[in-house]
Amino acid sequence: MKKLIKGLREFQSSYFPANEELFEQLSHGQKPRVLFITCSDSRIDPNLITQAGLGELFVIRNAGNIIPPFGATNGGEGATIEYAVQALDIQQIIVCGHSHCGAMKGLMKLDSLRVEMPLVHDWLKYAEATRRLVKDNYSHYEGEELLEIIIAENVLTQIENLRTYPVIHSKLHQGKLSIYAWIYQIETGEVLAYDPQKHAYVLPLNQLLPSEIDETANTRKISFAKTQQQEFELSQINPISTHTGFPMTVLSPQQMERIYRGSTTK
Amino acid sequence: MKKLIKGLREFQSSYFPANEELFEQLSHGQKPRVLFITCSDSRIDPNLITQAGLGELFVIRNAGNIIPPFGATNGGEGATIEYAVQALDIQQIIVCGHSHCGAMKGLMKLDSLRVEMPLVHDWLKYAEATRRLVKDNYSHYEGEELLEIIIAENVLTQIENLRTYPVIHSKLHQGKLSIYAWIYQIETGEVLAYDPQKHAYVLPLNQLLPSEIDETANTRKISFAKTQQQEFELSQINPISTHTGFPMTVLSPQQMERIYRGSTTK
Amino acid sequence: MKKLIKGLREFQSSYFPANEELFEQLSHGQKPRVLFITCSDSRIDPNLITQAGLGELFVIRNAGNIIPPFGATNGGEGATIEYAVQALDIQQIIVCGHSHCGAMKGLMKLDSLRVEMPLVHDWLKYAEATRRLVKDNYSHYEGEELLEIIIAENVLTQIENLRTYPVIHSKLHQGKLSIYAWIYQIETGEVLAYDPQKHAYVLPLNQLLPSEIDETANTRKISFAKTQQQEFELSQINPISTHTGFPMTVLSPQQMERIYRGSTTK
Amino acid sequence: MKKLIKGLREFQSSYFPANEELFEQLSHGQKPRVLFITCSDSRIDPNLITQAGLGELFVIRNAGNIIPPFGATNGGEGATIEYAVQALDIQQIIVCGHSHCGAMKGLMKLDSLRVEMPLVHDWLKYAEATRRLVKDNYSHYEGEELLEIIIAENVLTQIENLRTYPVIHSKLHQGKLSIYAWIYQIETGEVLAYDPQKHAYVLPLNQLLPSEIDETANTRKISFAKTQQQEFELSQINPISTHTGFPMTVLSPQQMERIYRGSTTK
Repeated sequence: MKKLIKGLREFQSSYFPANEELFEQLSHGQKPRVLFITCSDSRIDPNLITQAGLGELFVIRNAGNIIPPFGATNGGEGATIEYAVQALDIQQIIVCGHSHCGAMKGLMKLDSLRVEMPLVHDWLKYAEATRRLVKDNYSHYEGEELLEIIIAENVLTQIENLRTYPVIHSKLHQGKLSIYAWIYQIETGEVLAYDPQKHAYVLPLNQLLPSEIDETANTRKISFAKTQQQEFELSQINPISTHTGFPMTVLSPQQMERIYRGSTTK
Repeated sequence: MKKLIKGLREFQSSYFPANEELFEQLSHGQKPRVLFITCSDSRIDPNLITQAGLGELFVIRNAGNIIPPFGATNGGEGATIEYAVQALDIQQIIVCGHSHCGAMKGLMKLDSLRVEMPLVHDWLKYAEATRRLVKDNYSHYEGEELLEIIIAENVLTQIENLRTYPVIHSKLHQGKLSIYAWIYQIETGEVLAYDPQKHAYVLPLNQLLPSEIDETANTRKISFAKTQQQEFELSQINPISTHTGFPMTVLSPQQMERIYRGSTTK
Repeated sequence: MKKLIKGLREFQSSYFPANEELFEQLSHGQKPRVLFITCSDSRIDPNLITQAGLGELFVIRNAGNIIPPFGATNGGEGATIEYAVQALDIQQIIVCGHSHCGAMKGLMKLDSLRVEMPLVHDWLKYAEATRRLVKDNYSHYEGEELLEIIIAENVLTQIENLRTYPVIHSKLHQGKLSIYAWIYQIETGEVLAYDPQKHAYVLPLNQLLPSEIDETANTRKISFAKTQQQEFELSQINPISTHTGFPMTVLSPQQMERIYRGSTTK
Repeated sequence: MKKLIKGLREFQSSYFPANEELFEQLSHGQKPRVLFITCSDSRIDPNLITQAGLGELFVIRNAGNIIPPFGATNGGEGATIEYAVQALDIQQIIVCGHSHCGAMKGLMKLDSLRVEMPLVHDWLKYAEATRRLVKDNYSHYEGEELLEIIIAENVLTQIENLRTYPVIHSKLHQGKLSIYAWIYQIETGEVLAYDPQKHAYVLPLNQLLPSEIDETANTRKISFAKTQQQEFELSQINPISTHTGFPMTVLSPQQMERIYRGSTTK
């Protein structure tokens, strides 16, 4: 606590005075652009890794970056999602898993949690689709490799769950919402983003247009050349929603109307 | 009851003797190919409209052909889906809504149900994503037209919900499961199937290869020429899962493995 | 799917034109007389076995024809029952189990389901009263015989559950609702109905008055003469609701056994 | 998104190389000292305001920094708390509300949320104890002042809820857990901490022993002298858990008001 209280004072005496205008502005309201859903893990600092400023990220954090399907529980996840998308009109959601996730390790030894940590055990029910998928499809993996796969698949599972919320369902239909799957690698400080067209997690750099990529990027590109160049060159990250999502998301209501009525009425 | 008891006798004395071999065979087990999820409405008879024989359709029926998201409730829907896909190894699921659906009418006047039919009111929570989507996107419709849209959208909502079940999630990943959205039109006896590529409900005829379409089909094609020919000519119904579904469903585990590892490891 | 789509076309081109008036009439609303609750099993076709026409049976189907007690869950069963009895004013309910029921087999090996099919495991909780009754009272049975007893008892268990719904409770009080327990025998195509006065499942023929029994019935009567004549002559099927609180409770297991076996075995 | 992706790169190319040792160390596990529970609000950055490094704060964030009582729901809050205290052996918990909280504003107009944001409405049920306390005891307040009181009281409500968790209950009994109530003031960048002995929120500086207070602190002390000296001199912040069951309950609303306003307003 001493350290934290000293930190508060430090923040007050250095950061705050240097950014007084920002704080004044923030006191009138928030206009975040992104809902960032990630794990409670102490090794993740969403604002640090994205270099986002105060007021930019609306954040949900729980063990395992899990989102129970709509109606499955009345925890804070659903309400906070609803508030973000409806009250704040946020149009971009990032679900960000991370390497070495303790909750995902828990998925690998679920039975042992029943007695020891019953709430964690029950909570992991909402990652059961992850556990099942991995059990059925990746049975030849184990240890660290298996954990990596679980983490990667779980982000996608949670996005499926996210899609069952009425407000998400409706905004996706309107093409007004984009959902991104990220994995933060603690050991490298790197984020990988899911590319639905490639069915793979890749570096998110080329989501930027060529003109937006500065020299630093090109430099880094080279450093990855040996192992990832092919993916790197080809990949084009798009929000999950517009490409593999459910129907009609790229059409305007007018277009949808025309198509719908064209085929169902006489 | 008298009518039904006479019916039992009639069935016993005519249908049964004529199909004794089938019954003998069915007494040893079932091997249905399709899970058919539809409304309890008395005007729907799944076996009649598909001309499916005994032993072919595993059937879930409830008010509104609704599937609560995984974990949202412990009603029969989830267990029956699990049994169908896991124990019976069913690989095709049809969610079939229908015109003039009373449950969907209920969605249009939800508040009035709270007191009068509280269980129906609460049940319709699992169609809330439908209600919300329609409210946000089709506000200029009303009456019969609005009801048609609700019915059509609700089948898609329920397929979203269906996808949150672990066993469904895993089988979709393996490419071993196909999900179809149907609407049965009581007044015409017609079924329309959702085409994810066209984002529209169309006649499901051309799911058959040309060689499989007999003259009757061609005749019907003409009768629809005026209003639906364009859709009809172009459409190619595919299961929802393989085209707009979540990731990796068309890849083999080996391919997935290569891609996944290719992009996440060094 | 090809077969089903061909079936749709066949239905459209033959059944529909021959019954166009019926479909026109059904498009204006449904007036079913009976709520038919049965298993999802593909070998059951309620309309076929009762020879009921479109519009006559309102149908609930799930694994094991199970009805959770009121308040126990928010699945489709309660809402659909409420809709049937309240909105459609249905006054007759049939709960129909069947031989070789997979869900009831599951009751016999419940523990093995916990891991393999957890949703089925949890769902069977609502048939726990069946499992317990059978465990306590029929411990000397096993195999096929035990399964038959479980199936028969479970229909009665589920009727107990059904009686816990407010709308059912109230309508029963008014004498406006009748509930019937049926078992469909896949191998014989036969339905047995529970007779609360005899505490046994018997052929439902004599629910009809003598004048309503035609020659076919008499013929069948003879074929059963050897084993079931006594029951047959005496029985008078009545709806469960109006006559007894609940079955068999005053009989010893031995008596129950004699009666049960007298009417269901050869 | 472009901004965030650029931020990722910036983080990778500047922060990461400068702290490579830390990341290497963190990849072997986390040892956070504090569970920090706060709101999803984009204007809060726990690591920034406490100047805590990566690996120091385990974080739960949801709308309103709400913790449902044990057993009330199966959302992520309980599981994450259990994981923090049991698996990570965290011994300090901070519940941190903040000024201008949108969720707390929602508490002031709860009825209007029922239709518009039903999940938020239901979620605020777990802050109902706050709403009720404020309604019964602070009825003469309104507007901004009322909101400040709600925010301050809600942190205490949520700590009550937190105490209902078995693992918390047990650790408190052992004296192995401390719980702190904080309020972050967006407009001043200041944090106030609840002092259970004074029943007031005060500056947390004197939680430090005199020898630990450096010159900066003394400087700041002076700057607060005019308005808060009395509280400042006397207060001695202690964790809530070890000293009092719970706050303010023995004071009259008038006393509470005086104390509260004495320490939080200028």
